[in-house]
Amino acid sequence: MSITTLKLGIFGFGCVGQGLHNVLSKTKGINATIEKICIKHPDKIRSLDAAYFTTDPSEILDNPEIDVVVELIDDSEAAYHIVKEALIKGKAVVSANKKLIAEHLEELLFLQSKHKTPLLYEGSVCGSIPVIRNLEEYYDNDLLSSVSGIFNGSTNYILSKMRNEGLDFDLALKEAQDKGFAESDPLLDVGGFDAKYKLCITLLHAFGLLVRPENVLNIGIQNLSDQDVNYATQNNQNIKLVVHGQKQGQHISAFVMPTFVSADNPLTNVHNEFNGILLESAFANQQFFGGKGAGSDPTGSAVLSDISALTYGYKYEYKKLHQNTLVSYSTQQLLEVYVRYQDKETVQWDAFQNISQRFESKAYSYVIGSIYLEQLLQEEWALNDRISIVLKSILDGEILEATNKEIHAAL
Amino acid sequence: MSITTLKLGIFGFGCVGQGLHNVLSKTKGINATIEKICIKHPDKIRSLDAAYFTTDPSEILDNPEIDVVVELIDDSEAAYHIVKEALIKGKAVVSANKKLIAEHLEELLFLQSKHKTPLLYEGSVCGSIPVIRNLEEYYDNDLLSSVSGIFNGSTNYILSKMRNEGLDFDLALKEAQDKGFAESDPLLDVGGFDAKYKLCITLLHAFGLLVRPENVLNIGIQNLSDQDVNYATQNNQNIKLVVHGQKQGQHISAFVMPTFVSADNPLTNVHNEFNGILLESAFANQQFFGGKGAGSDPTGSAVLSDISALTYGYKYEYKKLHQNTLVSYSTQQLLEVYVRYQDKETVQWDAFQNISQRFESKAYSYVIGSIYLEQLLQEEWALNDRISIVLKSILDGEILEATNKEIHAAL
Repeated sequence: MSITTLKLGIFGFGCVGQGLHNVLSKTKGINATIEKICIKHPDKIRSLDAAYFTTDPSEILDNPEIDVVVELIDDSEAAYHIVKEALIKGKAVVSANKKLIAEHLEELLFLQSKHKTPLLYEGSVCGSIPVIRNLEEYYDNDLLSSVSGIFNGSTNYILSKMRNEGLDFDLALKEAQDKGFAESDPLLDVGGFDAKYKLCITLLHAFGLLVRPENVLNIGIQNLSDQDVNYATQNNQNIKLVVHGQKQGQHISAFVMPTFVSADNPLTNVHNEFNGILLESAFANQQFFGGKGAGSDPTGSAVLSDISALTYGYKYEYKKLHQNTLVSYSTQQLLEVYVRYQDKETVQWDAFQNISQRFESKAYSYVIGSIYLEQLLQEEWALNDRISIVLKSILDGEILEATNKEIHAAL
Repeated sequence: MSITTLKLGIFGFGCVGQGLHNVLSKTKGINATIEKICIKHPDKIRSLDAAYFTTDPSEILDNPEIDVVVELIDDSEAAYHIVKEALIKGKAVVSANKKLIAEHLEELLFLQSKHKTPLLYEGSVCGSIPVIRNLEEYYDNDLLSSVSGIFNGSTNYILSKMRNEGLDFDLALKEAQDKGFAESDPLLDVGGFDAKYKLCITLLHAFGLLVRPENVLNIGIQNLSDQDVNYATQNNQNIKLVVHGQKQGQHISAFVMPTFVSADNPLTNVHNEFNGILLESAFANQQFFGGKGAGSDPTGSAVLSDISALTYGYKYEYKKLHQNTLVSYSTQQLLEVYVRYQDKETVQWDAFQNISQRFESKAYSYVIGSIYLEQLLQEEWALNDRISIVLKSILDGEILEATNKEIHAAL
């Protein structure tokens, strides 16, 4: 067992940074000490001795004594430059910034490889749930077929409130914001962007797939109404904002979408601000991991675990990226969706492969139909705020045939 | 990345062994080939070429070409001798035999250290759920405070049937046996022994504690009746057979007992033959892992993952055992329990610290009281088949005081 005592330079001293300091001063389990903390506002009153603090990044980045840079700031652009420079200077880096990582994955891989220094980011996906490490280390064979999950706590909180307390979307969002679960720009959460960043990172470790966030569909929950929630309840289901990554042969499809979740799906029991991930593999069947996905403590826990891993020389091997050289991203995935609309004209009907159910009333109307992911990704109408779209199921060729037959029989 | 192609010698060719062969022949992800398979019955018809098979253990154990011994036989005594000899001969070993491992943990640690060769046994605890690897690698700091879980699929299946379909114990047991979920000797499952072996292994990786199975209390589910199940239902709870490991300061208490599980505990959603584990740590809050705990596929998946880990030179570091040299096993843990009885004489009343509730009727009677784990472990009456005991909560000193006060006020 080779254990090093690491010297840390921290950027940012908010809740996570302070929690990290508390834990490191208490625990004997992790051989790491904080050398310097770079902050933005030198005038704030701090709980630590002033000697710890600096406003000059170079006091960390150019200090040869510091082995590890821990990036804990809000601004993902500034964070990107810090992480990049730290890697170039040969320092190990820990970050939980999903936007930064998802948007620069390819470059960050290159920098790690070129400068032979690790970047760990367990905290970027589902907070304290050890998603990335498990995908890297435990599911490192090619039998994984599907990853799905609830990756955003604030939308899950909102949907739980809509379902269980009958709150409408705006009230539920306000409550989430009051409790501090929502990002300052709510569209990041409710529009499914935050979940999408996490999905993109997950796809790399699950399947060896690199995909840029802008190529992945995210339909958020902002257009959902109590009509949709009632429809789900009547069908004994829950609506959850679910990330999906699905492998069929060498093709991986992926997207974020409100999804009907039935009672036998473990994701249905993920309530309020909690997160959950469901893995399906040929041999291990279903595996479910649940826990707190965001907040300073869960994120701090993941950051701490990354620091601990660095003391043992751990780095991501990206085995699946190297093994699965043939996988490719595909939007040729047929989906069965529920679409609620007010005016017929807002829906682009020729985008559908078929419609199997149609309900019309004065108050609202909906259809159940099948449509290619590609179509939803291309079309503006899918994000129209007078339409809500919820996934019913991911279809494959065979299921499509059956569905077609049933439709023809029914019509 | 240093990857070796491992040569495997397998003992046993039942479902797990055959599944393993299938997967290894399909996947490119794992660099391992099967060299030889040692079996007991040479006359059985096999799906593989006869050249693979031998009935002579030395053809594997004395073959210098074979790097890894995979032990997949039923008989834990025979398995022990195979594993021991393999380690002595410097071979890496993979096993999923929880009885063998729990009963010989200390010796197996010593052998690994002396002969500098790894023994991996992820499949021994909760089948495909990556419990041990996560405890080793992810929770490797001293912040973990509690581990609890449903570690036995057949008892969970029985309890699910009793609760959801109103079956009585014997019928539910028969159904579990018919479905192949129960061990041939049902007492191993229903008496909580199987769960206890897994708990002992888990305690080592969670807290660095070595404890012999015979020193750990296991109360099974064989005495539970529909009265107990109804009591739970009325209180909006479920009865589950739960393993508990709890850290207070440097003291670890541990036991297996039927437990009232409330609706907000993720273990309540572990149904039928599934397993689940719940970790509580100061920083990460609650973490839940669920999946299939037994059966050839989930076990095979864990064995496969161990083989894969060996190709990357992985071994358990037993960090917590080395770090936490002060932890000790304690039975001085106060528990709040529900005890149902038919005759007053069968309960040893002076073993209780206090009784807070008492219900008496012609059909049955019960009390709620607090009692030290030590007392339950010592006393024969706790296993009397006319008594059923279900844990309500784990108390600590402060709670005890409050309880005492409430009782005095109430009496």
